[in-house]
Amino acid sequence: MQATMIYAPRDIRFEDRPDPTIAKPTDAIVRLLATCICGSDLWPYRGIAEVSKPTPMGHEYCGIVEEIGKEVRGIKRGQFVVGSFAASDNTCVICKDGYQSSCMQREWMSTAQAPILRVPLADGTLVATRDLPSKELIASLLATSDVLGTGWFAADAANVKPGKTAVVVGDGAVGLLAVLSAKEMGAERIIAMSRHESRQKLAREFGATDIVTERGDEGIARVKELTKGIGADSVLECVGTQESMIQAIRSARPGGFVSYVGVPHGVELDGTELFFAQVHLHGGPAPVRRYLPELIDLVLNEKINPGKVFDLTLPLDQVAEGYRAMDERRAIKTLLRP
Amino acid sequence: MQATMIYAPRDIRFEDRPDPTIAKPTDAIVRLLATCICGSDLWPYRGIAEVSKPTPMGHEYCGIVEEIGKEVRGIKRGQFVVGSFAASDNTCVICKDGYQSSCMQREWMSTAQAPILRVPLADGTLVATRDLPSKELIASLLATSDVLGTGWFAADAANVKPGKTAVVVGDGAVGLLAVLSAKEMGAERIIAMSRHESRQKLAREFGATDIVTERGDEGIARVKELTKGIGADSVLECVGTQESMIQAIRSARPGGFVSYVGVPHGVELDGTELFFAQVHLHGGPAPVRRYLPELIDLVLNEKINPGKVFDLTLPLDQVAEGYRAMDERRAIKTLLRP
Repeated sequence: MQATMIYAPRDIRFEDRPDPTIAKPTDAIVRLLATCICGSDLWPYRGIAEVSKPTPMGHEYCGIVEEIGKEVRGIKRGQFVVGSFAASDNTCVICKDGYQSSCMQREWMSTAQAPILRVPLADGTLVATRDLPSKELIASLLATSDVLGTGWFAADAANVKPGKTAVVVGDGAVGLLAVLSAKEMGAERIIAMSRHESRQKLAREFGATDIVTERGDEGIARVKELTKGIGADSVLECVGTQESMIQAIRSARPGGFVSYVGVPHGVELDGTELFFAQVHLHGGPAPVRRYLPELIDLVLNEKINPGKVFDLTLPLDQVAEGYRAMDERRAIKTLLRP
Repeated sequence: MQATMIYAPRDIRFEDRPDPTIAKPTDAIVRLLATCICGSDLWPYRGIAEVSKPTPMGHEYCGIVEEIGKEVRGIKRGQFVVGSFAASDNTCVICKDGYQSSCMQREWMSTAQAPILRVPLADGTLVATRDLPSKELIASLLATSDVLGTGWFAADAANVKPGKTAVVVGDGAVGLLAVLSAKEMGAERIIAMSRHESRQKLAREFGATDIVTERGDEGIARVKELTKGIGADSVLECVGTQESMIQAIRSARPGGFVSYVGVPHGVELDGTELFFAQVHLHGGPAPVRRYLPELIDLVLNEKINPGKVFDLTLPLDQVAEGYRAMDERRAIKTLLRP
C-alpha cells in the first residue's frame, strides 16, 4: 500500500509501505473508508514536536474489518467499525473506570493516514455498527474517532450540565465540537472564543450563544462581563498553550470546572494562582472509547452532524496538501479518502 | 487587651492592642474561649512568607458573642459560635455554590490569637450552637474552625467515597484530620504518609490502615505496590510544597482525584505531566463554612474527636512558645487559652 510519513517539519510524503498484517491474535485489519488530519499532527509538522526519523502519521479512522486475529471474539469480518486513537483492552480496572486512554495495555494508534490499518486489542478498541452506515454519515462517524470524542470529553470533564454557562477556548475542530458537546449536554449559554468568521459561524450553528473575539486579559474581562462578574461554571480548554490555559483558568468562577484536552506544549501552572482560583481541573488524552457507543448512536440517529468540521476533503494521496491547508488555516480539518 | 503580633521571622510578641469594636453594622465581637496556631502561621514565622511590618496573627477561633452590630439578625449575644478563617456573607452566588472562602465579600480573618475578636459578616460567618457546649468539647469545636474543615475539604475535593482507597500526603494537623475525614466518608483503605512515630499513632487512631514512611519516588512506588500497581482513587495533599504536590499527583490512578489544601509555596505544575496523569485536581482555601454545621454536629454528638491534634495547650500569653514548639515539631498543634 501507499501511506503517509513525515520526514521532517513540513515534509509529508505519501509512499510505499508494507501492507499491515495480523501481528498479535487480538489484532484486526481494517480497510479504511475515511481518515483525517488532527490538530495535534500539526505539532510535528510545524517543528514544535521533534521529528527524529521518518514516522508514519494518523490516528483517526473508520472502515470495514478485513481480517481478525484468532482471539478476536466481538468483532467480525465485514463489519463497519470506529476506534479511538488509543487502543485499549476495555477490560482492565482503568478501562472499567472509563479511562481507556490510560488502559494498562494501551497502544497509541499512529499509522491511520493509510488505506489499511492494523488495530491492536480489536475487541476492546473497536465499536461496530449493526448495519453498514450510509455514505453521508461516514464523515460524522469518522469524527467520533477523536475530534468529537475529545470535544465531548472536554464538556464532560468540565462538568457541563443543563442550565450552566460554558466557555470554549479554541476554535479549532475540537473546540467547535466542544461547543456541540456542551449544547448536547444542556448548557444554557455557550461562549465561544474565536476571531475567525467562518469558525464563528460554525460555532453558532453548533450551539454557541455568544462569541468573544478578544484574547488574553481582554478576553477574560469580556467573559466576566457576560457572567455577572463571576466567571463561567465550565471552561473547556481546547488548545494546549500556556496562554489558553491561563485564559481558561481565569475565566472560570471559584468552584467552577476547567477541562483541558489539547496536548500541552510548554504549559506550566503556578500553584498559588491555581490554589486561589479554586477551580476543578481535569483533562488529558480523551477516553474516547468510553463515549463511542453513545456518539455513534447520536450520529446514526442524525441527532448531531459533527462531520461539518471537515471543510476540506481530499483523496488520501494528496495528504500533503491537506496538511498545508490546515497549517495555513485555509481548512479547519481535512478528511482523506483512501 | 493584649494580643499576638509578628514583627519578623521568629519574633512573636504578645502586647497591648486596642480592644476590637463594632466597625460595621454586620460585625460581631466575640470573646474567645480558645484559639490556636496554624501550620500556615509557620510560613511567616520561618521567613518563607514575607513579614514587611508588625502584623497581628491568628484565624482559628470559637467563643461567646459579646456584642453584635445593628444589622446582625441570626447571631445573638451570649451564644457560643465558631467561624471560619474566611469571613463570608453566605448569601452571594459563590457562597450558595459552597465556595464561601471565595465569597464576593470575603475578608480573611487575621487577629484571632487574642482574647477578643471582631468578626465581619457575622450572620454569614458564624455558626452558633443551640446550647453552650461543655468544656471538654471546646478543643474539638475549635478544630472545626480551620484544621478539621480543611482536612474535610481535602477528603471531599478528592472525592473520597465508601470503599475507595485514599492516600494522605502530610502528617501535620491538617493531614491527620484529613485521615479522620476520609474515614468518616467511608474510605476502606487510608494510607498515611508519615515518618514520625507519634503522628503515625494518631493517624492510626483516626483511621489510617497503612503507614508509608518513604518519600519521593520510593514513597510513590510504595503506594503503587499497595494499590495493585495502579495508584490510589483519592490523594489528599496537605502540605503545599513542590515535592508533596508531585508525590500526590504521581500516587493517584488515571482518572483519580487529587486535592490540595495547603497554601502552595513555590509550586509549579508541568502541563504535560498533568495531562498524561489524567487526574482530577481540586483545591484551594477550604470553604470551611460549607461544612461547619455538619462538623459541629459530629463533635457535639461525640462522633469524632478532632481536638486530639492539639498536643500542647498554653495560656495565650505564652503564644511565642507555642510557635517555637510547632516550629521544632515538638508539638503537632498548639491550643491557646485566653
